Amino acid sequence: MSGQTIKYLLQERDIPTHWINLLPDLPGEPLPPLHPGTLQPVGPDDLAVIFPMSLIAQEVSPEAEIEIPEPVREAYKLWRPTPLHRARRFERELDTPAHIYYKYEGTSPAGSHKPNTAVAQAYENAQAGIRRLATETGAGQWGSALAFACSLFGLECEVFMVGSSYDQKPYRRSMMQTWGATVHRSPSELTNAGRANGSHPTGSLGIAISEAVEVAAQREDTNYSLGSVLNHVCLHQTVIGQEAIAQMAMAEEQPDVVIGCVGGGSNFAGLAFPFVRNVLRGGARMRFLAAEPTACPTLTRGAYRYDFGDTAGLTPLMPMYTLGHDFVPPPVHAGGLRYHGDAPMLCGLVRAGVIEARAYAQNDAFAAAVKFARCEGLIPGPEPSHAILAAIEEAEAAREAGEARVILFGLSGHGHFDLSAYDAFLAGGLEDPEFSEADMQAALARLPEVPAIA
Amino acid sequence: MSGQTIKYLLQERDIPTHWINLLPDLPGEPLPPLHPGTLQPVGPDDLAVIFPMSLIAQEVSPEAEIEIPEPVREAYKLWRPTPLHRARRFERELDTPAHIYYKYEGTSPAGSHKPNTAVAQAYENAQAGIRRLATETGAGQWGSALAFACSLFGLECEVFMVGSSYDQKPYRRSMMQTWGATVHRSPSELTNAGRANGSHPTGSLGIAISEAVEVAAQREDTNYSLGSVLNHVCLHQTVIGQEAIAQMAMAEEQPDVVIGCVGGGSNFAGLAFPFVRNVLRGGARMRFLAAEPTACPTLTRGAYRYDFGDTAGLTPLMPMYTLGHDFVPPPVHAGGLRYHGDAPMLCGLVRAGVIEARAYAQNDAFAAAVKFARCEGLIPGPEPSHAILAAIEEAEAAREAGEARVILFGLSGHGHFDLSAYDAFLAGGLEDPEFSEADMQAALARLPEVPAIA
Repeated sequence: MSGQTIKYLLQERDIPTHWINLLPDLPGEPLPPLHPGTLQPVGPDDLAVIFPMSLIAQEVSPEAEIEIPEPVREAYKLWRPTPLHRARRFERELDTPAHIYYKYEGTSPAGSHKPNTAVAQAYENAQAGIRRLATETGAGQWGSALAFACSLFGLECEVFMVGSSYDQKPYRRSMMQTWGATVHRSPSELTNAGRANGSHPTGSLGIAISEAVEVAAQREDTNYSLGSVLNHVCLHQTVIGQEAIAQMAMAEEQPDVVIGCVGGGSNFAGLAFPFVRNVLRGGARMRFLAAEPTACPTLTRGAYRYDFGDTAGLTPLMPMYTLGHDFVPPPVHAGGLRYHGDAPMLCGLVRAGVIEARAYAQNDAFAAAVKFARCEGLIPGPEPSHAILAAIEEAEAAREAGEARVILFGLSGHGHFDLSAYDAFLAGGLEDPEFSEADMQAALARLPEVPAIA
Repeated sequence: MSGQTIKYLLQERDIPTHWINLLPDLPGEPLPPLHPGTLQPVGPDDLAVIFPMSLIAQEVSPEAEIEIPEPVREAYKLWRPTPLHRARRFERELDTPAHIYYKYEGTSPAGSHKPNTAVAQAYENAQAGIRRLATETGAGQWGSALAFACSLFGLECEVFMVGSSYDQKPYRRSMMQTWGATVHRSPSELTNAGRANGSHPTGSLGIAISEAVEVAAQREDTNYSLGSVLNHVCLHQTVIGQEAIAQMAMAEEQPDVVIGCVGGGSNFAGLAFPFVRNVLRGGARMRFLAAEPTACPTLTRGAYRYDFGDTAGLTPLMPMYTLGHDFVPPPVHAGGLRYHGDAPMLCGLVRAGVIEARAYAQNDAFAAAVKFARCEGLIPGPEPSHAILAAIEEAEAAREAGEARVILFGLSGHGHFDLSAYDAFLAGGLEDPEFSEADMQAALARLPEVPAIA
């Protein structure tokens, strides 16, 4: 491999100037979100209690491109552009004629793609005169990103962290505190939702969301912030795919397949949507592959229904593949993929056949991650390990076909805070928890009746 | 700051082609290392039991530049070139006219500068037909780097990890295992040194070194590998400073002062020596500042003596500032700075007045790190936090002088595995352990009598 290029590196001036909004390019009229109380379409005013108008405008914008505010672009410069790697050692290990590329988002201060939207949201809230953002966090990835972003724009950050994670993952908590955030163990004594759930000492994501939303709704100077699923979150993440397009051009290749893991969908959207738009506009054909865990198989086994974005049923209902908002996925270490639904834009594209989806078992994903780490050095987070496994399958298919196919996958974050999971895997003690079809059907049966979906 | 450059980014083709060997540029004749048994100068053959001849040749080379083997340069491409940042937010926070730059080595897979030498050593050993490298590790930073490097060149890696760290830092152990290394809790049952020290269940760095050296000396196919102090280790690290010189040129500035933290000295040497050579050869004058902990003040309070490189007294004696090889520094979280001596080349330059040294208390260093993290995002390791504090002092001096001085410091690694220390600091529970002058004097009194140093 002497003299061969491994990384395709851009300069700061190559950081995108606009986000790509896929909404106007999607086939058909988008289905509106519904008010959780009235089940009627929500208007901007319904959302203004917890979001600034500028983000609400982005959520429903008909513009194909939205300019990135200069202060956000300046904040991106702290770690962007991120590298695109050609995984040459991994290709040799897999003995494949495929060319495997990966876009690495783990160089951000918080260690994942999450800050791409966190800094945008913190900026817009600061511009709107908001003094404080409240949010929930499970494993801590989103809370870390928002804590970092708030430190850049002089906002206070209040994070309600699921009690069991608060106890088991003290390092993510310390990380948020290092950036100046206040971290509450949820359920807390600070909110009605917390006090009402004092009998659940380990907490849940649903309770933590309820606490954060309550704080945001009650305090004039406080807003709520969400790390995935919504259109404006997917929008902010499209800096990833735009950079990747420029970097693939440096490599003088076009991907045959673009792969990402899917939890709420914003990581996948960020990498894939700029490529998807080219395809929808008649550009060169390519495949898109979403990788999810068998323990939480939203896209591969869920129903396409209107459902709440959160476990507690406080947010608007959105049209998406879902396992039912109160379905509790069995525990897997890829905490970021344990979400009952998926971003409506992404779900629409899966339904339209533009995006394929596959589900993978936890042990298989970790085996792929270890194989990758021993070739490429980087230790992947458990979430993107699912994308690595999908890339391995595609590389094997290319070998069987005898074709030098081009594979691009998203390595959305590192696994520095997930080494106990690696330890369990290497010791042979990692479980592959079963998904319960019956529990999903029961959860789906509890969904409210809403207007029929076309 | 709109439109201002924050990061200066090189391309893969800018990775240096040669390492810089400062040895021939140093004033005076270098003092030879002495055999630990005979106290006479050691020859290459004495070292060949545990090191390959190619590294021994680098250790004593009279050449000013040594070509980097192409496979090592290819391995560097996995994460190099590393970014150089202008810390504009930090400058504003400090209200200083100084321009502050930092070279960030935390983007390597192992999270620090250590892989720069680990891959070079693994390569040379693989070329020499060696099948396995043995080493010791305390906090785990060096063991991680060598485990990563061995995975790239098909070598087995056997790490003897200090027992107390093995128990308290399971994540670093899991990281090494993920890269395929075998990690032994030291003292182990595998070596004479381990068995003889069974009564020290928590182990020590000295015991771990003894175990690794014993394994390397006894097995034909196994060598030993050292992560700092030696000339060839400092040599390999000079890729850092060479890149920084190119990046400062992109910024169209010259540092007035170059700052780094010092444990064994290889991080400092890596950044500073390429600049030092320019100064020694009559280039523009600049200052060099080594930052160390008050708990282990080798350069600021140690004696310039011949001493063993290791705690156990197995390695050759080298001329250096030392606290005495069996002096036990009090525990601080900057485990990488708890070394009794320092690289002989670095010590010679401190003695010659080319490099200044300052010592900092642990709590002050963490306060500097938190201030930095809230401006620049990145969470520094405890070791480079000492360099950050030195940079703050220099920035304040620039403000007092009303001069736009240019400060460059090395951010040698991230703090993702040190968040328990941040937690203790933020909770106000971090100690500033006392250095004992009496203990140092006692340790120095135990040094063997050697030929007088000129």
